[in-house]
Amino acid sequence: MRRSELISIIRKKRSFLCIGLDTDLSKIPQHLLKADDPAFEFNKQIIDATHDLAVAYKPNLAFYECNGIKGWQSLTRTIQYLKNFEVFTIADAKRGDIGNTSTQYAKAFFNPDQSGLDFDAVTVAPYMGEDSIKPFLEFKGKWVVLLALTSNKGAEDFQFFSSGEKKLFEQVLDQSKNWGSEENMMYVVGATKAEMLTTIRKIVPDHFLLVPGVGAQGGSLQEVAKYGLTKDCGLLVNSSRNIIYASTGTDFAEKAREEAMKMQREMEGLLG
Amino acid sequence: MRRSELISIIRKKRSFLCIGLDTDLSKIPQHLLKADDPAFEFNKQIIDATHDLAVAYKPNLAFYECNGIKGWQSLTRTIQYLKNFEVFTIADAKRGDIGNTSTQYAKAFFNPDQSGLDFDAVTVAPYMGEDSIKPFLEFKGKWVVLLALTSNKGAEDFQFFSSGEKKLFEQVLDQSKNWGSEENMMYVVGATKAEMLTTIRKIVPDHFLLVPGVGAQGGSLQEVAKYGLTKDCGLLVNSSRNIIYASTGTDFAEKAREEAMKMQREMEGLLG
Repeated sequence: MRRSELISIIRKKRSFLCIGLDTDLSKIPQHLLKADDPAFEFNKQIIDATHDLAVAYKPNLAFYECNGIKGWQSLTRTIQYLKNFEVFTIADAKRGDIGNTSTQYAKAFFNPDQSGLDFDAVTVAPYMGEDSIKPFLEFKGKWVVLLALTSNKGAEDFQFFSSGEKKLFEQVLDQSKNWGSEENMMYVVGATKAEMLTTIRKIVPDHFLLVPGVGAQGGSLQEVAKYGLTKDCGLLVNSSRNIIYASTGTDFAEKAREEAMKMQREMEGLLG
Repeated sequence: MRRSELISIIRKKRSFLCIGLDTDLSKIPQHLLKADDPAFEFNKQIIDATHDLAVAYKPNLAFYECNGIKGWQSLTRTIQYLKNFEVFTIADAKRGDIGNTSTQYAKAFFNPDQSGLDFDAVTVAPYMGEDSIKPFLEFKGKWVVLLALTSNKGAEDFQFFSSGEKKLFEQVLDQSKNWGSEENMMYVVGATKAEMLTTIRKIVPDHFLLVPGVGAQGGSLQEVAKYGLTKDCGLLVNSSRNIIYASTGTDFAEKAREEAMKMQREMEGLLG
């Protein structure tokens, strides 16, 4: 998907909501466990109930891989189902390896003829540097969402490692922005560190930022918008648990819609 | 697998060779493509031909994921087949995510009842810090192999980012060694930077190091051994392409054995 198309979906839906499909079989409503593919059935009902409110969906690979081959079947069905809607899709996989190996990962997420998966974007970890990231950028219309400043406590261990002049996450932003452009790169910036968005916007004024950590992890949507919004929106704010596990009963999809709508309405106000 | 068991296999086989199963369907002998599961058939024949010479096998996940569900079937069959031999198994997956998500990744690689996979170790990227790594260490007898200094060109982009006093990879080693112990953590150190092993051995004198980059990527086994060997060996040196693609004919397994034997003999000499 092109950047202009993403911006047009944001304007049409008056939302910059990304829903995280962190589908955990121990947390989904018990009645779904009788289905042939419970994880897909859950995702399908969540998507049906929210696709007019969300601009993006982000399955986290860990929740599928832990179920082995069955998990990959659920993931494949989910991404194929998402193709029915006007949404941006992100494989939250945090991959990255030496050049020729990253090319294989890119095929896994971007080449449906080979892998069955056809995401618009994949999250990538920066530790291995340029040649671990560039292979993903060679796929036209596809995006790298690079980890910059994550929402967890462990972010402080290395991401704030400082040269005196700069912290590591600033160096990652500054150096990597030249490997692609605003048309094919985004950055992960945790909502739990919203005040850092001012610094970040100085380095990457126009890139889209994927912001996890609103809700369950404690981040504030107001704060994120205050420091992160651009003229093109420039934000995708993710919510997972607060929406998809809003209820564990048979009304889970309805309740998920209510939570998603709360966020969409707040976002509509912030977009002005 | 416990550290003492790994050391005893190294002594018995007089080898510290790890064979990388980077199984690419476009590179394996063409006659195998007729098999039901060509990637597994290739791996099986490579394993049959080399298991007395190698102490470890390391499938790189990218080469399986790029084939989607079929790839995960090949990977699952491969790890199940490896259970027939006295070998250490490493999922070269370079995973890592916030705490509760890393737990799901750990289940993917370490909990066969849920995922079908039962590796001894998984490679993990350090960028997200302590809570992204610790969940893997909670599985008894299982290992984290943390990226420290990788073998690719892009390693220079961030791994050498310096505080003046320390480079990032040194900080990663120094800080993370307290999260586990020599009994459940190893580090990836590329053979292409063998001279750095002196510095690294000062920080982690007893940890096992997984060393890629010998052979196809240009690293020297002699150099790695000179700076990296400890009284317990302390090294697993990986070779992928040089061994598994030694021939593209029907003699591929035989030729792979010849290459593996060359390395095992050199290693036997170095172990003394």
